[in-house]
Amino acid sequence: MNAHTKPQKNSVKAAPQTVTTGPIIGSRKIYVAAPEHPDMRVPFREVALTTDAEPPVRIYDPSGPYTETDAKIDLNAGLVQPRRAWLDARGFEVVAGRAVTAADNGNISAEQLVPACPAQRPILMAKPGQMTTQYEFARAGIVTPEMTYVAHRENLGRAAMLEGARERHADGESFGASVPEFVTPEFVRDEIARGRAIIPANINHPELEPMAIGRNFLVKINANIGNSAVTSGAAEEVEKLVWAIRWGADTVMDLSTGRNIHNIRSWILRNSPVPIGTVPIYQALEKVGGDPIKLDWEVFKDTLIEQAEQGVDYFTIHAGVRLPYVPLTASRVTGIVSRGGSIMARWCLAHHKESFLYERFDEICEIMRRYDVSFSLGDGLRPGSIADANDRAQFAELETLGELTKVAWDKGCQVMIEGPGHVPMHKIKENMDKQLRECGEAPFYTLGPLTTDIAPGYDHITSGIGAAMIGWFGCAMLCYVTPKEHLGLPDRDDVKTGVITYRIAAHAADLAKGHPAAKLRDDALSRARFDFRWEDQFNLALDPDTARAFHDETLPKDAHKVAHFCSMCGPKFCSMKITQDLRAEVQAMGDNERAALEAMALDQAAAKLEQQRIEGMAEKSQEFLKKGGNLYLPAAE
Amino acid sequence: MNAHTKPQKNSVKAAPQTVTTGPIIGSRKIYVAAPEHPDMRVPFREVALTTDAEPPVRIYDPSGPYTETDAKIDLNAGLVQPRRAWLDARGFEVVAGRAVTAADNGNISAEQLVPACPAQRPILMAKPGQMTTQYEFARAGIVTPEMTYVAHRENLGRAAMLEGARERHADGESFGASVPEFVTPEFVRDEIARGRAIIPANINHPELEPMAIGRNFLVKINANIGNSAVTSGAAEEVEKLVWAIRWGADTVMDLSTGRNIHNIRSWILRNSPVPIGTVPIYQALEKVGGDPIKLDWEVFKDTLIEQAEQGVDYFTIHAGVRLPYVPLTASRVTGIVSRGGSIMARWCLAHHKESFLYERFDEICEIMRRYDVSFSLGDGLRPGSIADANDRAQFAELETLGELTKVAWDKGCQVMIEGPGHVPMHKIKENMDKQLRECGEAPFYTLGPLTTDIAPGYDHITSGIGAAMIGWFGCAMLCYVTPKEHLGLPDRDDVKTGVITYRIAAHAADLAKGHPAAKLRDDALSRARFDFRWEDQFNLALDPDTARAFHDETLPKDAHKVAHFCSMCGPKFCSMKITQDLRAEVQAMGDNERAALEAMALDQAAAKLEQQRIEGMAEKSQEFLKKGGNLYLPAAE
Repeated sequence: MNAHTKPQKNSVKAAPQTVTTGPIIGSRKIYVAAPEHPDMRVPFREVALTTDAEPPVRIYDPSGPYTETDAKIDLNAGLVQPRRAWLDARGFEVVAGRAVTAADNGNISAEQLVPACPAQRPILMAKPGQMTTQYEFARAGIVTPEMTYVAHRENLGRAAMLEGARERHADGESFGASVPEFVTPEFVRDEIARGRAIIPANINHPELEPMAIGRNFLVKINANIGNSAVTSGAAEEVEKLVWAIRWGADTVMDLSTGRNIHNIRSWILRNSPVPIGTVPIYQALEKVGGDPIKLDWEVFKDTLIEQAEQGVDYFTIHAGVRLPYVPLTASRVTGIVSRGGSIMARWCLAHHKESFLYERFDEICEIMRRYDVSFSLGDGLRPGSIADANDRAQFAELETLGELTKVAWDKGCQVMIEGPGHVPMHKIKENMDKQLRECGEAPFYTLGPLTTDIAPGYDHITSGIGAAMIGWFGCAMLCYVTPKEHLGLPDRDDVKTGVITYRIAAHAADLAKGHPAAKLRDDALSRARFDFRWEDQFNLALDPDTARAFHDETLPKDAHKVAHFCSMCGPKFCSMKITQDLRAEVQAMGDNERAALEAMALDQAAAKLEQQRIEGMAEKSQEFLKKGGNLYLPAAE
Repeated sequence: MNAHTKPQKNSVKAAPQTVTTGPIIGSRKIYVAAPEHPDMRVPFREVALTTDAEPPVRIYDPSGPYTETDAKIDLNAGLVQPRRAWLDARGFEVVAGRAVTAADNGNISAEQLVPACPAQRPILMAKPGQMTTQYEFARAGIVTPEMTYVAHRENLGRAAMLEGARERHADGESFGASVPEFVTPEFVRDEIARGRAIIPANINHPELEPMAIGRNFLVKINANIGNSAVTSGAAEEVEKLVWAIRWGADTVMDLSTGRNIHNIRSWILRNSPVPIGTVPIYQALEKVGGDPIKLDWEVFKDTLIEQAEQGVDYFTIHAGVRLPYVPLTASRVTGIVSRGGSIMARWCLAHHKESFLYERFDEICEIMRRYDVSFSLGDGLRPGSIADANDRAQFAELETLGELTKVAWDKGCQVMIEGPGHVPMHKIKENMDKQLRECGEAPFYTLGPLTTDIAPGYDHITSGIGAAMIGWFGCAMLCYVTPKEHLGLPDRDDVKTGVITYRIAAHAADLAKGHPAAKLRDDALSRARFDFRWEDQFNLALDPDTARAFHDETLPKDAHKVAHFCSMCGPKFCSMKITQDLRAEVQAMGDNERAALEAMALDQAAAKLEQQRIEGMAEKSQEFLKKGGNLYLPAAE
């Protein structure tokens, strides 16, 4: 545990006082001004190396001000507000806002009530007809400060780093994505205008450090937090947020379902530099005493407004769970595993009516547009087991989500689409391809997928495999799964494990897509490894603390940090040590000698190629003979 | 930790006394006779369920007699010998064997010497010209008892289970593998004769429970154990073996490099029911005082015979590291990362001679054939970083391994091929495809691959992603990577984490390939999950102890084991609970009502298909127009 860590007492009643602060060991927070906005401070984490031969490595950093060296955090006042001036300049209406009711906090008794966060912000709302969402600005050709911020953030100072790198690396297979060489504000605008990316950014969330979710940007990850009726309170949830973003969560969903959720949410939002997502139906259900059948449009609408005014950046809306799809799930092995999906299915069936989310979708759009809350169209019928993957229920809903995407765009809203779930490897790509096709390339946001059902306790891994693959295929954001999935609520360690696992998946995907800057960090770490710069190796790792601790278990002394071996092989058997000697020897060779050896290898390669050419020709003639009379395709008239 | 666990004191000198025994909680060891050999006892692990509606689930089990209910283990006597009678019937020559020298144990002092395992076995060797290897028997059309054993083992009682399952499941994408509906002894023989599978089974390893490695069998995993100069001794290594196979390692490599390795190996072999692999060059290097330059054919040959007589089942031989390839590695980011590879490269360069492993390959084959030691042709030039993946050095060596595979087959030996390493996702398939092509479909055995370099401390996960993918593409065995990779020697927990991670990868691969029996376990677990049969869910998990412990952290009471919710969502919000109510409701619907709803969904599906058909036609006409005059392919004469 970090020296700065101050764990919270687990008490439902306590309001949060302090959270984990200070830099990740071995790196420092930096802010870089954007040329277009000299006052814009785009955050990064920078790892300085112990060698003069290489520049520091700049890392994308969603952790907010908490990781500054002398972070001054006052949870009661909330974070600094990077968007304040931009929002004020847009001239939104300041409204009194909906009155908070006892039901918003689950009618909890006074002595158990968590106080709301005292930080006050004006509540903003679009005036009738006023351009509000990033999508609307983008469609109108306007580059917002949010877009500029995102462009610089995504670039990671790429120009300088690539210059410093030994070679350019951008090979990859992107399956039709078009990650640009450099990200410009105009590129961001264009991607948003096409609906291929979103910047979830409620106008009531001035504390946000804007970020983009889209196939042509770095792959993002989401961490879920939230109390349930069984465990955890406010203090724990805010610390979970800070902890999750410290290790790299790009957005956080607050899935609280217990009491106090309105007030806990106020603490989370006022202290969150990342977009916060919620599933409003959870709170709506609390308001009607937990019985899905009692839900109706009014209570749902009220909840949307309540949460939009607080500043939630994206809402999961399960509007694709339609009445006719419900029977399609009856023969499934695991039925409906989405909470929102099962609630809506129950409602539809009990009332024998089409879902009010589907029927009122236009009105939902109008509410969300007024605050620029992005849609995360929920996959209420996602498969909950390998057996149910890619079935008719799942794909019927996905087709409806595609239809709704177009409606939301028409209404000026930003949209992403949620995806499964449990999917074996050979069925993952079909999910991605179908989503792109049905939903007009709107960003896909998947949970995992888990590639097998047989490893409860390790579902961060079963799903990390699927997440890396679907990220490679084009998924824009990966919702993490922790080791506790299916078993219980994640604690602090589980959250970290889930986040690091998903950072691995996202980065592996960026590498495979051929992202122009992703490989720089791998190369820097590998050079450090080869040079036995242990400290650099630790500091460049996704989790420097764990890397260092594992190393020190067997070789704890400071001297070992510069040792040319580790405990895996010991000093005599270190292949890297032997290779270094070897490299010196190759370099010391006469030019003729080296050239002669290389020529031998090349001769063999040439012979091999020639052989393959001959085999290839033989194969082609075989094919040719097999095809026989079918060589002519049907001709055009 | 299991109640039966008796951890060993970490002492270099202590001979092993006891190891972890007893069943994995919630399952029991069973032995099933083969119809062809009524005395053959094929081992499985069986999980009985708490519902009468479903049969027990049979699981592939490499853990040996250690997991029997009242396991009687005497490490001094060694394990029971399932192969004894089969081997005796073959009439091999019993030889005196090579005299053990002080150098075999690294010239260690008497007081530090670990005694050899007292279990005595005759040392067998083929008579001149005697048919010995499984490959030779297979080519001659002879089905050995080992092949029959493997066939039944691979089937998992599949016929009965599929009968009991609700539906047949075998969809998948196998990329050209041909996993059969049922495995017969004749199928095993045929795969071995074609070189597509091996049964690593030294005639001096009678304790072995035979298993197969090949693309058309279940994907296997290997765990590495072994002391190094820095840490660990005999007691720890034998317990690591037992611990690794308990959780599912199919083979174990003893990579010891310190002293006492001859004697430690005797304890491991006499007590191992799984194939043991080694890298003989490590011990040869010890014998020449650790200086690669002093290696020669005589010391290597002596080591091969020493280890073959002890019963090692497969040898990693880095015969593909040829002199001309060495300069190809000089410009790599991480040079040569294989210990064996770097040793041989150093030798080649220092002597400016072709590798004696390559030059003496015929003689190596002759020695290995005499004991049926399988080849694991080492990838001494595998990439050690993302930057070096799929480079000329790596592929040049792979081409040479292909050449050597054919030599080894000609000499009657069984062969598998080792593969990388560090490979980004988009370059993994090329590795698999090239290996199959170059090496005539000999089984591929890869380390990971790691899909990014930036997560030391989590390389079981970076590599688990790559392992699952390459297993899907056709890799036959996956060498595990533990969380300590690159940082230190794995301890007991690391070994377990590595094994479980790789069982996940192997199983995900089997599922994606469409293995006819793999999905049965997923479905059984998912049904248990949906029915809230918590105990069944735990017991069917790869790691029941961890699943149970995670659940109990928040809901420890016995009553919660039958509760219709977990702490993730609490009782009101459980989607599975809601779906169960829902399913009852759908079932209670009138037939007409249900039919009407389903018809609505089908209508929508039909409309969708129609739309796609129209779009498809439009697309085709576009294509057609684009192609213009190129519609005619060149015609045959």
